[in-house]
Amino acid sequence: MAAIASLQIKTPTQSTPLPKTFKTHFRLQSISYKHNPTRNLTRKPTRISCGLIEPDGGKVVNLVVPEFERDLKKREAMDLLKIKVSRIDLEWIHVLSEGWASPLTGFMRESEFLQTLHFNSLWLGDGSVVNMSVPIVLDIDDAQKERISGSGSTSVALIDGSDNPVAILNNIEIYKHNKEERIARTWGTTAPGLPYAEEAITGAGDWLIGGDLEVIQPIKYHDGLDHYRLSPSELREEFEKRNADAVFAFQLRNPVHNGHALLMTDTRRRLLQMGYKNPVLLLHPLGGFTKADDVPLSWRMKQHQKVLEDGVLDPENTVVSIFPSPMHYAGPTEVQWHAKARINAGANFYIVGRDPAGMGHPVEKRDLYNADHGKKVLSMAPGLERLNILPFKVAAYDRTQQKMEFFDPSRAQDFLFISGTKMRTLAKNRENPPDGFMCPGGWEVLVEYYDSLAANEAGRVPEPIPA
Amino acid sequence: MAAIASLQIKTPTQSTPLPKTFKTHFRLQSISYKHNPTRNLTRKPTRISCGLIEPDGGKVVNLVVPEFERDLKKREAMDLLKIKVSRIDLEWIHVLSEGWASPLTGFMRESEFLQTLHFNSLWLGDGSVVNMSVPIVLDIDDAQKERISGSGSTSVALIDGSDNPVAILNNIEIYKHNKEERIARTWGTTAPGLPYAEEAITGAGDWLIGGDLEVIQPIKYHDGLDHYRLSPSELREEFEKRNADAVFAFQLRNPVHNGHALLMTDTRRRLLQMGYKNPVLLLHPLGGFTKADDVPLSWRMKQHQKVLEDGVLDPENTVVSIFPSPMHYAGPTEVQWHAKARINAGANFYIVGRDPAGMGHPVEKRDLYNADHGKKVLSMAPGLERLNILPFKVAAYDRTQQKMEFFDPSRAQDFLFISGTKMRTLAKNRENPPDGFMCPGGWEVLVEYYDSLAANEAGRVPEPIPA
Repeated sequence: MAAIASLQIKTPTQSTPLPKTFKTHFRLQSISYKHNPTRNLTRKPTRISCGLIEPDGGKVVNLVVPEFERDLKKREAMDLLKIKVSRIDLEWIHVLSEGWASPLTGFMRESEFLQTLHFNSLWLGDGSVVNMSVPIVLDIDDAQKERISGSGSTSVALIDGSDNPVAILNNIEIYKHNKEERIARTWGTTAPGLPYAEEAITGAGDWLIGGDLEVIQPIKYHDGLDHYRLSPSELREEFEKRNADAVFAFQLRNPVHNGHALLMTDTRRRLLQMGYKNPVLLLHPLGGFTKADDVPLSWRMKQHQKVLEDGVLDPENTVVSIFPSPMHYAGPTEVQWHAKARINAGANFYIVGRDPAGMGHPVEKRDLYNADHGKKVLSMAPGLERLNILPFKVAAYDRTQQKMEFFDPSRAQDFLFISGTKMRTLAKNRENPPDGFMCPGGWEVLVEYYDSLAANEAGRVPEPIPA
Repeated sequence: MAAIASLQIKTPTQSTPLPKTFKTHFRLQSISYKHNPTRNLTRKPTRISCGLIEPDGGKVVNLVVPEFERDLKKREAMDLLKIKVSRIDLEWIHVLSEGWASPLTGFMRESEFLQTLHFNSLWLGDGSVVNMSVPIVLDIDDAQKERISGSGSTSVALIDGSDNPVAILNNIEIYKHNKEERIARTWGTTAPGLPYAEEAITGAGDWLIGGDLEVIQPIKYHDGLDHYRLSPSELREEFEKRNADAVFAFQLRNPVHNGHALLMTDTRRRLLQMGYKNPVLLLHPLGGFTKADDVPLSWRMKQHQKVLEDGVLDPENTVVSIFPSPMHYAGPTEVQWHAKARINAGANFYIVGRDPAGMGHPVEKRDLYNADHGKKVLSMAPGLERLNILPFKVAAYDRTQQKMEFFDPSRAQDFLFISGTKMRTLAKNRENPPDGFMCPGGWEVLVEYYDSLAANEAGRVPEPIPA
């Protein structure tokens, strides 16, 4: 699979040399050797005419039942034993239903869970390997296990907080949920205070239930943002409609400043230089669970909208969409998931930042992960050989030009680094950042958000604004 | 590599069907598909005449400098900055020097360390993957790092407790030793009390130093057991001398009882039934660091010797040797290392026990690992596709036959399970186990060991006996 698929990566027609600062995934080239061991690395691969990068497992999984069957499935669900799912569970059902985790067809069974924990990848029956670094699992408690095992049924219904049937889980397998081991192997720590673990694991049941999902209807949140939530198949359609011959994905969960914008426009410029005719940017904010002190999705989307309106990014070659996954903050482990999911949505280039999916250690005064490990692990990850990894170039505020510019160490004194903390402090205090740091419309949204936060005496978790 | 190597697994000439209870590695067959996609799984592969299973990376690494260069290298080492190594470090140098960890050529650099922690495997330049599940690393402290970095040298000397130069580490790379992350990802817990972590990690330096080893002379322990310490190359020679057409490895760190012996003789019987002409057993006790309450190596070797003298195992087709690795007690992660190292020594069948390399949770009252995970993870591990995994069949004392027999659930009441704890209690109390549990000579060694332990008022860690 990997061998075939690697042939389908778009390669440039022109022989413009790859700029030195523009590192591509080193294993892309190793793999090429397998096809033609005599080929010299400096020779340009020949163009292979084809569509977007192939999804993991060969096709984008779709677990939503066809419209004509939905009533039937709903009735079927009503007759089954029911498991009430949490908001995060629902987000995972969403992720699975649309094939972000292709070729997974439901919550992991033990074999998939173990491969994820130990190898960050799944072995497919045909001998190929796909990346899978975070467990996508559903927990149940002792009483639920008893009832399900006792019933002898091989299916259960999953219902939401209002008791509406969401999905049927078929051919179920129940196995032990070793929470400590799951946390240790996913995060590389078991320190208390990991946001996802506190929210979804520590208090969870001692069993996991895997199986194949039939999702009764597309998952919607009715928060005014559903139109931003394009599925991998819808995104692929969009890229094809736009005749994209390269798709570069930018994962984010923070407001966009002009340093980000510079990076994105620069990436497009370089892809054009490489010979691509129409590289399209997938600006892909994460929409699922985030920790309490992150800017909520609704505010972020409002901010991104302003940035686009301001013309900082060109709507012609930019697709803004929401990635429905919850956030683990699991650094080098999670960045693989972020990249893999974007392959399934058609992206063949992935921009990786400094310390991706990282955070401060919950107990010790240090970053949880080495800031370079995300990039390094991503470049070595099984199943991601086909993806071109683009390391984030550091941008900072250039005082001489009064705009965000790529950092030039030869004139370090000219640059001002504005950290996330600094940015938040400025916005909270209604102060302005230096001109050219962020478009004024975008900055206003941030100030407005922190105002709303201050107004909310309860403090840390404001209600999302209606978009 | 994996593709080529899988062709070299010995396949039986006769078409005796594989007994149902004798599970082979399911991926062996998946891989075959890659070579010939039309081949039906039920068809017998044709015999390919060849030698033993190919070592990882194509050849067994040998890092011991040739005899004529040793004086030169010793002098060279004397002029370098020196790092004093611990007993466990020395055991790893031994392991590396003889190629148990082929294709590793020294202590891991960061890239290998990260691949080990995240993927339990290493990607080779030619596109193939080898298994590597436990970090083989050397720590240094801040002061050592300062000195080495300050010197600008690319090599350091490693010296033993008596200041003798042991090896030179070349092309060094120094990187951060995140102990918490290393422990969490290797053991799936960070609970205090993990024997290897307490011994070799918790108090270790905050930096790791990787590089290529030149080992000045073969590592010897002068404990009367060195003649048992055959290198992978020496074992391969031995198997070839014996005309072995299958080698099945049995890793152990406990006394051998007749249940083990039954398993080993039964395995040979089944391999013969499959068509192999001369399957040879590699009885391969682990010889490096073990926890305080394990029976020390010298006593175990004495016990194994008695078992062989007693005729329980046939010396004609049994090779007893010591595996020099230290023990991690890291369950499913470590069992992969145990299996992989045996490939390098020529074994193409590996017997895996219940809860291999497992132990009690150091803090909670439960086993640290699910007893089945070792077997499952091993069967899915990248880089081990070529190895045939033989799950341990449970043997227990059959009261009706007064001997160890494979457990038959249809007459469960006839069987007596004698746990390790029970065995130790009997030996400590100088009581005899039921007839047929262990050969009398072997049992006497155990009783003698526990007597010596009782005599030692200090208690838990007796001096090893001279063998």
